[in-house]
Amino acid sequence: MSIASTPPPPYYAVIFTSIKKEHTPGYTSMAEKMLELAAEQPGFLGVESVRQDIGITISYWDSMYSIKLWKENAAHLTAQEHGKLQWYAHYTVRICLVQKEYSF
Amino acid sequence: MSIASTPPPPYYAVIFTSIKKEHTPGYTSMAEKMLELAAEQPGFLGVESVRQDIGITISYWDSMYSIKLWKENAAHLTAQEHGKLQWYAHYTVRICLVQKEYSF
Repeated sequence: MSIASTPPPPYYAVIFTSIKKEHTPGYTSMAEKMLELAAEQPGFLGVESVRQDIGITISYWDSMYSIKLWKENAAHLTAQEHGKLQWYAHYTVRICLVQKEYSF
Repeated sequence: MSIASTPPPPYYAVIFTSIKKEHTPGYTSMAEKMLELAAEQPGFLGVESVRQDIGITISYWDSMYSIKLWKENAAHLTAQEHGKLQWYAHYTVRICLVQKEYSF
């Protein structure tokens, strides 16, 4: 994982913060598949993902429309259902307009 | 660390994604101090922070003005200077308007 290389703002970020259940069979392979699939979607700009006690995954997008298409992607919908039923104890999704960016 | 409990949007998020150098003396105590100090600032709404190969720290704020005040806080300015000189190989800061939020 590296720092996402995103274009000059404005663009969008989806912050997904989660706490997993203790036993999460199938989670790792599904999470990897979803990262790969997201990267193939129209309007995808990059992703950053880290997990310790909580997990933070931020995906970057060119528009709200691209975020909507990804949310409604059939394979992603299946993963979201599995997530609620089997893997996540809690999660919060925040949809954000990135207004400024600077790097060092 | 837990999922930040933030108010209904709109509010602001500062996404700080970083890669540390190999040897970072003093980093951990300074990072902890900065999290404590941020939490005392006006307009602070919460923070989420995770580090593996990359680190992601997201702080949430009520306004751009509160973000500006925190950026210009004297102790924080010192930490930012140490960060550039000693601790971080790379970082990206993204300032975002959180427009939607939902939880499970």
